[in-house]
Amino acid sequence: MADPAPLEFYFDFSSPYSYLASEKIDALAAKYGRKVKWRPMLLGIAFQRAGTRPLVDIPLKGEYCIRDFSRSARYMDVPFGYPTRFPLATLHAARAYYWLHGKDCAKAREFAHAVFRAFFVDDRDIADLAVVQDIAAGLGIDRDELAAAVQRPEIKARLKDETEGAVARGMFGAPYIVVDGEAFWGVDRLPQIEKWLATGGF
Amino acid sequence: MADPAPLEFYFDFSSPYSYLASEKIDALAAKYGRKVKWRPMLLGIAFQRAGTRPLVDIPLKGEYCIRDFSRSARYMDVPFGYPTRFPLATLHAARAYYWLHGKDCAKAREFAHAVFRAFFVDDRDIADLAVVQDIAAGLGIDRDELAAAVQRPEIKARLKDETEGAVARGMFGAPYIVVDGEAFWGVDRLPQIEKWLATGGF
Repeated sequence: MADPAPLEFYFDFSSPYSYLASEKIDALAAKYGRKVKWRPMLLGIAFQRAGTRPLVDIPLKGEYCIRDFSRSARYMDVPFGYPTRFPLATLHAARAYYWLHGKDCAKAREFAHAVFRAFFVDDRDIADLAVVQDIAAGLGIDRDELAAAVQRPEIKARLKDETEGAVARGMFGAPYIVVDGEAFWGVDRLPQIEKWLATGGF
Repeated sequence: MADPAPLEFYFDFSSPYSYLASEKIDALAAKYGRKVKWRPMLLGIAFQRAGTRPLVDIPLKGEYCIRDFSRSARYMDVPFGYPTRFPLATLHAARAYYWLHGKDCAKAREFAHAVFRAFFVDDRDIADLAVVQDIAAGLGIDRDELAAAVQRPEIKARLKDETEGAVARGMFGAPYIVVDGEAFWGVDRLPQIEKWLATGGF
């Protein structure tokens, strides 16, 4: 029998709730014998399509969410600090992910975790290519190869395609997790995802 | 020793996630020896202040949310049907609530449940004063007294004050539940509220 399809985890490296999900999603899926396909994308494009804005730019809601990020992290027992620079552009990190993914899936996953933690734990400026290179170098990835890769047309096109693909699947915010065709938005939907996996849908 | 302060449950009668919360919040609070102060308000005013819109008017997000309303209801085991008229004005129902509350708290709570269920289970037009009167009449409340009450200046002022008060406390969406000064937005925060009540904050 074929393996069941992986969960599809769409996220932007600058999304706090995506980071929280990233720390839990693989273990949750594994409990039910499932894998997860990680798909970084550019949330700004989805916001344009939905006519929405980054949470923290919205009066009242923004202030609430900054508080909720930290509280949700404590609730989930995930280390978290609200970044000094927020939100920021994640183009280099996302392109680097797809380049790595083409060579070594496991290394790409390791890199993704490292980027999230650099931003949300160590307050590093992941918009800066040099910082992305540093993070990669810490995992034994060649700095110069990475810098060249993120400028390659096929890598640029890949991120563009993934972003368009996410929006085409209805994505308007992050994280956006698709389980057997059913879309779940927000880290607060992990309990529903677990029930879905456990019961085959409800 | 004085009783602990009640939870404050701000909601609009037309909010699906508020309805879901309304079916669970009293029992959740009671587990921890707490009561709940129900405070209907007009969410449209909060949306104006935050510069946001009803969920269902937002491209992509709207379609997702319509699906999520029903799925969340099934997840929480609460009967739910997406209303034919949505969203709608809840002025009469909210004013009637405050009028009843001034006379009989328990009856007001019963009325609030009945209004939510009329809208989200029986698909009735709760914007219509005659429908609100019918719902009230089913609970032994006088139709004519209610119709007169919702036009009284002090009842109108009460709803206005409660709405302004909610926004002053940071409300931008519903349900908005304040526990000992800590605000939680969304029915998906009930698990965090439970942990907060169980541990005194985290």
